[in-house]
Amino acid sequence: MELTCTQENLNKALNIIGRVVNKNTTLPILDNVLMETEKGRLKLSSTNLEMGINCWIGGKIIKEGKITIPTRLFSSFIGGLPNQNIEIRQVGESLKLSCGNYRTEIKGLSAEDFPLIPKIKADPIVEIKSLLIKEALIQVLPSVSLSESRPEITGVFMDFSQLDKNKLVLAATDSYRLAERSIDLNGAKINKEGLNLLGEKKSLIVPRNTAQELSRILDNSDGELKIILSENQILFDCGSVNLISRLIEGQYPDYQQIIPTIFKSEAVVDNGEFQKAIKISSLFSDLKTNSVSLKADEKSKTVEIKAETGEVGKNSSKVAAQIKGEKVEIVFNHRYLVDGLNSVNAEEVALKMNDSSSPVVLSAAGGKEGKKDFLYLIMPIRG
Amino acid sequence: MELTCTQENLNKALNIIGRVVNKNTTLPILDNVLMETEKGRLKLSSTNLEMGINCWIGGKIIKEGKITIPTRLFSSFIGGLPNQNIEIRQVGESLKLSCGNYRTEIKGLSAEDFPLIPKIKADPIVEIKSLLIKEALIQVLPSVSLSESRPEITGVFMDFSQLDKNKLVLAATDSYRLAERSIDLNGAKINKEGLNLLGEKKSLIVPRNTAQELSRILDNSDGELKIILSENQILFDCGSVNLISRLIEGQYPDYQQIIPTIFKSEAVVDNGEFQKAIKISSLFSDLKTNSVSLKADEKSKTVEIKAETGEVGKNSSKVAAQIKGEKVEIVFNHRYLVDGLNSVNAEEVALKMNDSSSPVVLSAAGGKEGKKDFLYLIMPIRG
Repeated sequence: MELTCTQENLNKALNIIGRVVNKNTTLPILDNVLMETEKGRLKLSSTNLEMGINCWIGGKIIKEGKITIPTRLFSSFIGGLPNQNIEIRQVGESLKLSCGNYRTEIKGLSAEDFPLIPKIKADPIVEIKSLLIKEALIQVLPSVSLSESRPEITGVFMDFSQLDKNKLVLAATDSYRLAERSIDLNGAKINKEGLNLLGEKKSLIVPRNTAQELSRILDNSDGELKIILSENQILFDCGSVNLISRLIEGQYPDYQQIIPTIFKSEAVVDNGEFQKAIKISSLFSDLKTNSVSLKADEKSKTVEIKAETGEVGKNSSKVAAQIKGEKVEIVFNHRYLVDGLNSVNAEEVALKMNDSSSPVVLSAAGGKEGKKDFLYLIMPIRG
Repeated sequence: MELTCTQENLNKALNIIGRVVNKNTTLPILDNVLMETEKGRLKLSSTNLEMGINCWIGGKIIKEGKITIPTRLFSSFIGGLPNQNIEIRQVGESLKLSCGNYRTEIKGLSAEDFPLIPKIKADPIVEIKSLLIKEALIQVLPSVSLSESRPEITGVFMDFSQLDKNKLVLAATDSYRLAERSIDLNGAKINKEGLNLLGEKKSLIVPRNTAQELSRILDNSDGELKIILSENQILFDCGSVNLISRLIEGQYPDYQQIIPTIFKSEAVVDNGEFQKAIKISSLFSDLKTNSVSLKADEKSKTVEIKAETGEVGKNSSKVAAQIKGEKVEIVFNHRYLVDGLNSVNAEEVALKMNDSSSPVVLSAAGGKEGKKDFLYLIMPIRG
């Protein structure tokens, strides 16, 4: 292999690639990045066996070839170089690099031992603005379960069953709270035949790490993302970066049935003020349960937030609110509440409640139609 | 105790006070801050038995009193409150606070059990611009020894013996490198009689943690710092904040004798470029010795930086330099070199060398007189 590329391009690619690299792995070659010339470009790949990333950059290819190089060292090294051209030349299982006044030789491992990242050749099911998927992932990711006891909820649920209504739904739950985001597919390209691969349920579960990586890769630009399926794999194709991942098998819980459709009370609060009050109250909440209580009363026009622990002390505060309906008091885990308020991502939040043992639904308040696409449900702590 | 103060003032004081608080201490009251009314102000104190901080803030004192309150909780709580007046009232061993819509009660411990922070009543030895001491501390602190095997070098050496030449000298060493900063006392108030307390050596050793804390407390303002001594204690008085600390006993090494006075070669390099090159080389240096080699050659007009480790690879780079004198090659620990270049704090650095087994001296290059007040010496790694 022999080529020339810019420090800027190689550095950018290594920053994307490097995140997938495992630490302390039992398979040392997974610490390496595969570099390979391909059709006049340089392809960089890394994998942790659950997912793999390929990234292509432009360059002047003088001689074809492939090699693997320790990712962390390579990434730190390239990151430190000046923004100039880098001449790269493979000599046996080493890479010789020359950039400005720097002359370097890095020892690698044979490309033959690098695990194959599967290729998926199929038409995309959906081609959609990257930004829409990124936004949705950021909203649902905090609710994905971290416990391995129920593997089917350790990923993001992608529901394609409403494509005919131009809707793609992303959801996540850890059984204490649920986040659901509906994405409007108007303007997206949809290939309904591709859906046959998903069978009757027309949905799939993307592992948490993959979803997290995808949300980072999708930049804030106006680029398009193609979602391509094979039997147990998914390919997210963003042009010069491809993310390929296994899918989680199993049946995602039918969460729709736990979302209440009627509510006895509704309180609308300023998101920022409400979060501040909950964070202060959380200092006085029990360390085991993380419980804070909310009391909404139409007459007082406030939501009262309270927490108390014997040894520490107690706190109460009031936040101005527009309240409709019955008086209600509910106890929550303050972490779930703050996560939810962040995910709602609106200046004013509506809390829709029934009683102290029923789930509460958070969503953006007000009439903006575009903001009605996200809901966050929290189970209360029963008194 | 009953008083009113602003959230801003109390928050600022707790941020200063909070840093001294120990974690996991066997004496739980050391986790607390002592709050005490004193001459119409509120005094906050914390101590870890090695050092103590007192901080005074203004307020409207309605009733005198004192109490101790868990520092971390109190600091987080006050930090989260809106910037308004806080009403504070002691009820038994609890503190009731009211600010905006927040009502809070925090449980405390009796002030009687709080360890006494010693008071030092004496005239200051020196009264000097805070900023000068802060700058000097930042330059010498990285060189203080972290190993307890020689307690006398685990602090910053303050040498008052040259007060008649208007010089205060700060130094630090860990026996691998040495940093020395001389502070010009022109304009400072000096009380030579106070020096008698220091005995013949006219110097003292300030524990590392105290020096670090002092460098943080001294803001970038134009304030004055008074240094006040008792037999085994030192008081740094910055007006509304006082830091009191024990001193380290023992004889500081007579480091002057190891600083070479004549050199066979001198290289002047751009500080930024040189640091970049060393950082890149360090990726290829042996993990045990951290060694990189420097080669200066008058003819080539460059300093060459090299590192190599069998399993990893090798790197070399050249940095433009103005070189005078003999050709020389010396091996260093790259960490000490980078620390030194940072401490020199000048765009151009002069490296003064003799041979591969002699110490090297770093200082600011060029004719600026003001910059000749700092030197950094590194012992080479012998080949």
